[in-house]
Amino acid sequence: MRERVEIVLPGWVGERAVSCLPTRHDRMRYVVDLARRNVSNGTGGPFAAAVIATNTGAVRSVGVNLVVAEANSTAHAEMVALQLAQADLGCHDLAAAPAGPYELVCSVEPCTMCLGAVVWSGVHTLVCGATDGDARAIGFDEGPKPPDWVEALQQRGMAVHREVLRPDAAGVLRAYADAGGPIYNARR
Amino acid sequence: MRERVEIVLPGWVGERAVSCLPTRHDRMRYVVDLARRNVSNGTGGPFAAAVIATNTGAVRSVGVNLVVAEANSTAHAEMVALQLAQADLGCHDLAAAPAGPYELVCSVEPCTMCLGAVVWSGVHTLVCGATDGDARAIGFDEGPKPPDWVEALQQRGMAVHREVLRPDAAGVLRAYADAGGPIYNARR
Repeated sequence: MRERVEIVLPGWVGERAVSCLPTRHDRMRYVVDLARRNVSNGTGGPFAAAVIATNTGAVRSVGVNLVVAEANSTAHAEMVALQLAQADLGCHDLAAAPAGPYELVCSVEPCTMCLGAVVWSGVHTLVCGATDGDARAIGFDEGPKPPDWVEALQQRGMAVHREVLRPDAAGVLRAYADAGGPIYNARR
Repeated sequence: MRERVEIVLPGWVGERAVSCLPTRHDRMRYVVDLARRNVSNGTGGPFAAAVIATNTGAVRSVGVNLVVAEANSTAHAEMVALQLAQADLGCHDLAAAPAGPYELVCSVEPCTMCLGAVVWSGVHTLVCGATDGDARAIGFDEGPKPPDWVEALQQRGMAVHREVLRPDAAGVLRAYADAGGPIYNARR
């Protein structure tokens, strides 16, 4: 019986590493670029995310969708970024980690799984580009998400910023669909 | 910037490995025992899960809650079991993997994150012991889960079996709470 599982970022992600992104638009522009490159490099779906220290802009981790590459249906961009940040800081709760508070910047609004992961992660802010409707429009199933998911995060003390550079982020989704990219794990 | 993250089962789990569990009660009894031992061994919270081939009873993977031990807020029992099974089979979609169909047997009904993970995993059946209400009763937040989450899984073609050996499974939760076990990532 297998006892360990690993997720490894593709090599090209390290080549795109930056240390600091001062503004919200800088952060989203970077994440959308990673999503685009994840498709063009053939490493996964059109999704990317980063964990960033809100006040300083220090980039703590990045993630891209690696579901097929890593044979791991949980390897959504948000999940990868959150786990890498926690591993780096040695703490399962980013709200208790040094040099915070931290935010999760993601190119598309989270699916059900990633929504739950955001709640448990300790980030205090969620910043999204394309909407879950944009993802559904090209055939991705976002899962059984409650319609009031934004309010559910706010009730837990989190801030949510939506539609940041949405046209750019949604453009990556549409380009992926137009090029015939696989819409895996969609409705059966 | 960190490029890899790993989840490793504690050594005692391997010592409890079994190859085949014929009946639904056998499967739940095994998972509930793992949840109890995860607490008594000091390796994590009172939750365990397993991915099992429904027709043959072959145990493909097991998972226990490793959030604190692994400094990883996504390391819920269900997430660990699903990822280990997929890594073992080399496939992100258990519905397309050999020797299936597969089911996820979990000692407690899934939180929001694990609910989403179940949808993407390719398991065709979910088997639960204690209810999400039992988890909430000792202070765990199950996250922003839609009230019709069972129907949402059924609409996606999955079967859901609830309250299998619920008294045993809920007893592990209550014993954990009575012993003063930490209820991390609960409501803030």
